[in-house]
Amino acid sequence: MNYIIGVDLGGTYIKAGVVSKQGELLYETSLPSKAEVSPQAVVGQIAKAVETIKDKYKGDELLGVGIGSPGMVDLDGGTVKYPPNFANWTAFRLGEETTKKTGARVEVENDANAAAVGELKFGAGKGLKNFIMITLGTGVGGGFIIDGKIFRGEQGGAGEIGHTTINYNGPLCNCGNHGCVEAHVGQRYLSRRVAEQLKSHPESLINKLINGDTEKLEPKIISQAAEQGDKFALQVWQETGMYIGVAVASAFNLFDVATLIVGGGVAKAGRPLFDSIEETIKLRALTTIKQRTKILHAQLENSAGILGAAALIAE
Amino acid sequence: MNYIIGVDLGGTYIKAGVVSKQGELLYETSLPSKAEVSPQAVVGQIAKAVETIKDKYKGDELLGVGIGSPGMVDLDGGTVKYPPNFANWTAFRLGEETTKKTGARVEVENDANAAAVGELKFGAGKGLKNFIMITLGTGVGGGFIIDGKIFRGEQGGAGEIGHTTINYNGPLCNCGNHGCVEAHVGQRYLSRRVAEQLKSHPESLINKLINGDTEKLEPKIISQAAEQGDKFALQVWQETGMYIGVAVASAFNLFDVATLIVGGGVAKAGRPLFDSIEETIKLRALTTIKQRTKILHAQLENSAGILGAAALIAE
Repeated sequence: MNYIIGVDLGGTYIKAGVVSKQGELLYETSLPSKAEVSPQAVVGQIAKAVETIKDKYKGDELLGVGIGSPGMVDLDGGTVKYPPNFANWTAFRLGEETTKKTGARVEVENDANAAAVGELKFGAGKGLKNFIMITLGTGVGGGFIIDGKIFRGEQGGAGEIGHTTINYNGPLCNCGNHGCVEAHVGQRYLSRRVAEQLKSHPESLINKLINGDTEKLEPKIISQAAEQGDKFALQVWQETGMYIGVAVASAFNLFDVATLIVGGGVAKAGRPLFDSIEETIKLRALTTIKQRTKILHAQLENSAGILGAAALIAE
Repeated sequence: MNYIIGVDLGGTYIKAGVVSKQGELLYETSLPSKAEVSPQAVVGQIAKAVETIKDKYKGDELLGVGIGSPGMVDLDGGTVKYPPNFANWTAFRLGEETTKKTGARVEVENDANAAAVGELKFGAGKGLKNFIMITLGTGVGGGFIIDGKIFRGEQGGAGEIGHTTINYNGPLCNCGNHGCVEAHVGQRYLSRRVAEQLKSHPESLINKLINGDTEKLEPKIISQAAEQGDKFALQVWQETGMYIGVAVASAFNLFDVATLIVGGGVAKAGRPLFDSIEETIKLRALTTIKQRTKILHAQLENSAGILGAAALIAE
């Protein structure tokens, strides 16, 4: 059998999986990423995962190792720059170093881009030539598929839809700008906004679910309340979808693309969120765009990181 | 001699020029576009201009006719859809019909894209691989050069930077959306905004220059006042540059591009406007972008339409 190893590199853990060329996840393992030590330590951990898997799949042929990494991945396809929360890491040839340690073909891609390639090869984007994938989590990640390939831009950093300004007077974002969509709907900002608004919504079920402790606020709680028909919770998703829709409409107009795939934890809010995103785009995008707008749920969800990384080799 | 005919198709006039392969404008003529009649009438006028020029340049070789057209130009490179202010024109094969009438090779491109190609071949973009060109006039046009070519998107409509939302609660735009950058800095909106603000600035020189008649407000007047050090006028350009910079920073982040070329009538405001655009981008774009941001003046200015159209053939 031919197989691919997909590596989802995170600040705390590395998740590695064995994936078939058709995108089936056959085996999964995880180990600490040692991001707090050094880039070389991280490569050591990736190599360890690869060796473990090669041992287990002796007799089968490894096609290559795909790595989805935080930070910016250079156009050379292997140098990772400034991954947040990785110690002593400015620019490091992750691809080359991993090949040295493992002897395998290695492809490295920014994790948001890898997620988009995963959907393109194995998920909701199969058969599509152009779409924007957004991943709603702590941040708002973006991967743009144009003409069947990742759109990389001048230095490989394209697709940063999280840092699209939707209100120039808006809240301060982690990136230093004011009014990024991420500063409205990134998990932390979202929870903060809801905590603030809850004060004027004592009737909301959310208060019960968190026992009045706003530290416990997370998207899952808001969704639980929304599912039970809580008006305020539904309004939160409607507002969140509006913010996202504003940024996506701008991106659609710029790229002349009309299909959006939405993944990540916050996407679990489902219908109330998706309806609001769609409504907003249809209200705000240019006529030629809104006529053909489609919003799709990401399909790879829980294993998106590993499958997206593996898809880099399946290309 | 080999020469190119560049056609700048407008709602009232067609401007046609003879351009060398090096981008020298050798001869220029204009005639009514008959846009109010029909697409066929427009083609007839273009053919008339071409015949006039061919007569004049008998013995020389016509390489082709480039047409910069309003509206959306399809990926097939010849069908123009919905040009505003053109009668009975939904989708029309302008390229093919012009070839039929003239026998020449014809390339058609959206006028904002043609302006970008013009700067790429003959102007401020020479030697650059990636830049965004914006044209500040009645509207805010955009042409994106990525990897040395126009970025067209799925159906040829990409680059609509004028309809990037900079404030989701902002003023209503002609396109139906609220808060587009065009609804802040398009000529009409700009004049309206300044007229409103002038009420609280009776000391401004602008009041004198327009004799209190806000109907006379236009960018040239504001620039005149700014040149004489009028504080309010300078503030207008600063604010205008901020609005533009917000939209451009978003586009830079999405495309991973860091060079902007600014053209169009409003760009004549010069320094106070350009400084503010640059300052805003350096404040708001992502670190990897702002470190290499460059803002350039368009160079083709008055003949940009003809030269941009001719550049389509020079490609």
